[in-house]
Amino acid sequence: MRFSLIQVNVLMAVSIVIAIAAFAVAYWLYRWVVAIPVASKRVARLREQISAGAATFLNREYRLLAIFTVVVAVLIFFFLPNPVWTGSWSKNLAMAFSFVFGTAFSALAGKVGVVVATQANARSAEAARTSLGKSFLAGFRGGAVMGMAVVGASLLGVALIFWIIGDSSALLGFSFGASTLALFAKAGGGIFTKTADISADLVGKVELGIPEDDPRNPAVIADNVGDNVGDVAGMGADLFDSNVASMVAALVIGLSLGGRDGKAVTMVFTFAALGLLASIVGVVTARMGKSENPTNALNMSTYVTGGIYLVLTFAASLLLGFDILLWVTAMIGLAVGVLIGITSDYFTNDLRKPVQKVAAMSKTGPAFTILSGISYGLLSVLPAMIGVGVAALASYKVAEMYNPDYALFGIAMAAVGMLSIVGTIISNDAYGPIVDNARGLVEMADLGEEALDRTDALDSAGNTVKAITKGFSIGAAGLTVIALLGTFMTEVNAAAAEHGLVALGKNYIEGFDIMDPLVFFGLLVGAAIPAVFSAMLMNGVNRNADRMVTEIHRQFREIPGLKEGKEGVEPDSNRCIAIATDGALRELVPAGLMVILFTLLVGFVGGVHAIGGFLAGNIVSGLLLAIFMSNSGGLWDNGKKFIEAGNHGGKGSEAHKSAVIGDTVGDPFKDTAGPSINTQITVVSLVASVAAELFLLFSIFG
Amino acid sequence: MRFSLIQVNVLMAVSIVIAIAAFAVAYWLYRWVVAIPVASKRVARLREQISAGAATFLNREYRLLAIFTVVVAVLIFFFLPNPVWTGSWSKNLAMAFSFVFGTAFSALAGKVGVVVATQANARSAEAARTSLGKSFLAGFRGGAVMGMAVVGASLLGVALIFWIIGDSSALLGFSFGASTLALFAKAGGGIFTKTADISADLVGKVELGIPEDDPRNPAVIADNVGDNVGDVAGMGADLFDSNVASMVAALVIGLSLGGRDGKAVTMVFTFAALGLLASIVGVVTARMGKSENPTNALNMSTYVTGGIYLVLTFAASLLLGFDILLWVTAMIGLAVGVLIGITSDYFTNDLRKPVQKVAAMSKTGPAFTILSGISYGLLSVLPAMIGVGVAALASYKVAEMYNPDYALFGIAMAAVGMLSIVGTIISNDAYGPIVDNARGLVEMADLGEEALDRTDALDSAGNTVKAITKGFSIGAAGLTVIALLGTFMTEVNAAAAEHGLVALGKNYIEGFDIMDPLVFFGLLVGAAIPAVFSAMLMNGVNRNADRMVTEIHRQFREIPGLKEGKEGVEPDSNRCIAIATDGALRELVPAGLMVILFTLLVGFVGGVHAIGGFLAGNIVSGLLLAIFMSNSGGLWDNGKKFIEAGNHGGKGSEAHKSAVIGDTVGDPFKDTAGPSINTQITVVSLVASVAAELFLLFSIFG
Repeated sequence: MRFSLIQVNVLMAVSIVIAIAAFAVAYWLYRWVVAIPVASKRVARLREQISAGAATFLNREYRLLAIFTVVVAVLIFFFLPNPVWTGSWSKNLAMAFSFVFGTAFSALAGKVGVVVATQANARSAEAARTSLGKSFLAGFRGGAVMGMAVVGASLLGVALIFWIIGDSSALLGFSFGASTLALFAKAGGGIFTKTADISADLVGKVELGIPEDDPRNPAVIADNVGDNVGDVAGMGADLFDSNVASMVAALVIGLSLGGRDGKAVTMVFTFAALGLLASIVGVVTARMGKSENPTNALNMSTYVTGGIYLVLTFAASLLLGFDILLWVTAMIGLAVGVLIGITSDYFTNDLRKPVQKVAAMSKTGPAFTILSGISYGLLSVLPAMIGVGVAALASYKVAEMYNPDYALFGIAMAAVGMLSIVGTIISNDAYGPIVDNARGLVEMADLGEEALDRTDALDSAGNTVKAITKGFSIGAAGLTVIALLGTFMTEVNAAAAEHGLVALGKNYIEGFDIMDPLVFFGLLVGAAIPAVFSAMLMNGVNRNADRMVTEIHRQFREIPGLKEGKEGVEPDSNRCIAIATDGALRELVPAGLMVILFTLLVGFVGGVHAIGGFLAGNIVSGLLLAIFMSNSGGLWDNGKKFIEAGNHGGKGSEAHKSAVIGDTVGDPFKDTAGPSINTQITVVSLVASVAAELFLLFSIFG
Repeated sequence: MRFSLIQVNVLMAVSIVIAIAAFAVAYWLYRWVVAIPVASKRVARLREQISAGAATFLNREYRLLAIFTVVVAVLIFFFLPNPVWTGSWSKNLAMAFSFVFGTAFSALAGKVGVVVATQANARSAEAARTSLGKSFLAGFRGGAVMGMAVVGASLLGVALIFWIIGDSSALLGFSFGASTLALFAKAGGGIFTKTADISADLVGKVELGIPEDDPRNPAVIADNVGDNVGDVAGMGADLFDSNVASMVAALVIGLSLGGRDGKAVTMVFTFAALGLLASIVGVVTARMGKSENPTNALNMSTYVTGGIYLVLTFAASLLLGFDILLWVTAMIGLAVGVLIGITSDYFTNDLRKPVQKVAAMSKTGPAFTILSGISYGLLSVLPAMIGVGVAALASYKVAEMYNPDYALFGIAMAAVGMLSIVGTIISNDAYGPIVDNARGLVEMADLGEEALDRTDALDSAGNTVKAITKGFSIGAAGLTVIALLGTFMTEVNAAAAEHGLVALGKNYIEGFDIMDPLVFFGLLVGAAIPAVFSAMLMNGVNRNADRMVTEIHRQFREIPGLKEGKEGVEPDSNRCIAIATDGALRELVPAGLMVILFTLLVGFVGGVHAIGGFLAGNIVSGLLLAIFMSNSGGLWDNGKKFIEAGNHGGKGSEAHKSAVIGDTVGDPFKDTAGPSINTQITVVSLVASVAAELFLLFSIFG
């Protein structure tokens, strides 16, 4: 079955309208948030400081990345997908343009998120003086602005590229742009936020014994800035990347199956658009209700979105004639995404055994906090990896039942299905740093015990839900990159056919054989990359925190009256922000470049077979390390909070000291390295796909 | 070219004679060691305590494993390689018998090693009163007894099985027996030793501030017992396992190439026998010379062995007509093994940047010790994994140049070549715990400052060389299991041919395609297993150490005069040994069983394709985690020693406290989990090979 040109154009137009509707909803949510008055002068002033710090960082980061983008775009124009002197200039130009477009959209979504988050934090703080429900909603809707912006931008960007240019190399270029920007944004933001967080804690809480958000601490503002640039902008870029990549993977495979007007391509747009629609409903209707339980409210928005999505896509499949088996593949993805989230929750929730055991172990000393946290983190790898494996296997087999040619498309649709609820997931996730900020503002501006209790409750819900959203985003990245492996193969075969390397109708490669030593070589090297990448990021945080700690010590030593909290004496927060910024920008480049260069190296040395192994090794070890690090980190964080709630001696006890050390180790695990690996595996997969033709033609051993 | 029956028989006889010669050399070395008189009554008494403790543990462990062995042997008889009711009882009996034989040989080699090591420790301590050279030689030759016993037993066992039964399932059964015992011995010994080590340090050094081997500490004897049962017996079983597996992998592939009298099989025995011969020379001629540098003496023995091996095998290849290209594959393995050892050394040597950086970071607090140690450990993964990948790729390609059918055999020969010097490697490695014990005895028996300085120097050399031997043994296991992947495929094809599943002369499987979702599913699950396995072992150490710390506290509280060191008051060391033993035996079973059961589960669910992916995933993530954990652990250990040598404030400084925490985290990393993963990946590969026929015939989805 094919669709007519008019039908396809209507579908594209509807997708674009829904994407634009998401922006409208985002704007409405934004207006709703900023309409809440900020009465406290001190809150307003701190908010401005945070907002200005975040803007400074983002502007400098984007300026650096703009240079990088231009350089890469020029390289793409000359070399990708084919050297320009072979006559492919129009294709190259389209890919270069799409690449720039992808980076710009990603940057824009991140920027919007941070601008709104740094408004919403103050509103949530203000609202906490009077109402838990309103404070919650300020945080959630602030986050939802980014959720809507990210998903709207993904759909809009992909639909425009598809409509205007419409070939797979342009789509891959767009996705590659989104992914590259995400890699740097996530790494840079992650280094910034943990530099500030660790340094603030180390000098403040550990050395001087002052509270978390004490205004005397010169790193406190930087810490709050970090929440925004790391958790809001970085995570937004990460999920923008995954979302675009899942759509592009499905579209590229879909194009090879039935062309622009085939059922596969239409199905991708339909399902993506309906996912966004479902997210809009889920986000707009979310509120706390009478239970006063923010965790339930957040989870409910996810389930509502998922439920609506299920119904809408089922109806659309009947209406538009998509086979119900293909609908099932999307539902498999959705279900497994939620399940992986739930297992992450088990390992990081303080009501469960792992956190409680680690907290209990902390009584024996910090080495046991570390060892037991690492052990549970490693254990948590099993259910998530089985989950991703089952999702890939089941969706492949189900789609194969429909039509053997559609088997890989089934995996891609599972990824699309898993990411369908991403608008709500982002809203839930961005809620976390906003209410964390709000809590800081309440404390720094002294808004009273009641407000502090309220923001504490909201913050704690943010932490709980974060484990779920993190597990979800790792699972989604995993499934997406498996689909991208299929995309890579599709690209290689298309290029081989174009260059007459195979007879018409034959495939150049049908797969990647592990027993081929080039594939195995790629597998080993690919598996090492996430380890090296995360090591470089963590070393970056270490070095940077070292510099910042020195600066904080200097301020406490040299600014008279600061330590004693004399009226009117303020720390020089901007110096700390500058150090975190400089360091993050310096450290993010080598790690990101290493990843891209290693992919090119393996591709040009070992050819497409080595790259097949490289991608598989990278996915497998990337998932393993990302899950391990995210869950260990979350577990240590909540273990510390569990002790602070009065268990095992509470604050100041030996157990607490150990738990603080665990939390410090966990910070770069969960907020720098772990989530960056997600993006790393996507980038590697996209580099492979965009350079597939070059690897095919110009490798040494391939 | 074929060899005549007489030629093959002569070769087998020569191999067996060389193996028996190794035992003779071991006996001569043993006599040399025990001829050194032990003058100090206190040393003699402590030695007996350690020896008795080790014997108690080993006897109980072996009793438990004997039951396990019988159960598995019965299961093998009924089910492997084929259900007995299908008429294959003679084959099944041969495999069951070979399995038992393999466990017995492995246990014997470990037992011999421990008996000698617990004699040599006292001799090394005694000799340290007068001469560094003699003290060194007592330690080295004590270790060499096990080196000779292990390699002699490998060659003897494999040669006997081959000569008497001679089919591949019996060889695999023997290797499976060796591997299973190694898995439990390594895990049990590793849990025992780190339980005792951590508990002794925690209460002794950290809480009470008494020296390392203070005789008042009830856990000190257990700690010394642990060095023997963990590092000597466990490591011996580990390398016995790798050595047997590399020979068996090469033999099984060799049998499929040219049968019993073909060139391939003859080459394996020739090269293995010459490796043993070279090791004998390397071990017997080793001594310290005038330089008085124990590290050089240990490394020199490795290089001498390697050099002799190179010359002997080259001459044999010319003489017996093995193609020089195949000789090259063995040399590739040898060279890469040494190179991987050298990169491990870089990451753990205190003269290099990583250890010094981590030591410097320790000034900022324990979280930074941990984070920077983890970062360097993750970085260290890259060269080793590239090394294994290059070795596999190069040996495959070189062998392919000789004959495409021999490509996989090339990888197997690279593993055989890498393991050729294993006799010397084991001697070097077992030297470490012996002189560590000797140092303890010198301190506990108060043999004087000069003796302590000498044993300190010897101990430090042991630590340095250990990094190299560990890197080497991980590399060897990695290459071996890649060869075993080929063995598995060979077994599947043989079984398929036997059952008429393919036309004559055709292969049932030519490889494992990553794009096959069953393979990918296997890849993901296989990769998760080493993480879960090491988590279970580390949790075992945690739980066990918790119990032992409680007991040490009880003794200091309840035994009057113990803390004050009153004359004649002694701690109840046996209680501590009993706790470590009970705990280790309780904790080792679930982890080992989990590994075996998961392999069976994946095989019976997903069939041979899923198992192919499972093995590949297991190898890749196993190597990654093993290298990471071993190197991080070694780095923390040496970082602590670097500070204790007077850097960054020396003993008692803040940096030292942080480094001690790092070292405690590193203990189960480097001595429990890391090296056990080696064995884990071999066991999984062998389970797959012995059950290949069942997976082929009885899987659900395969």
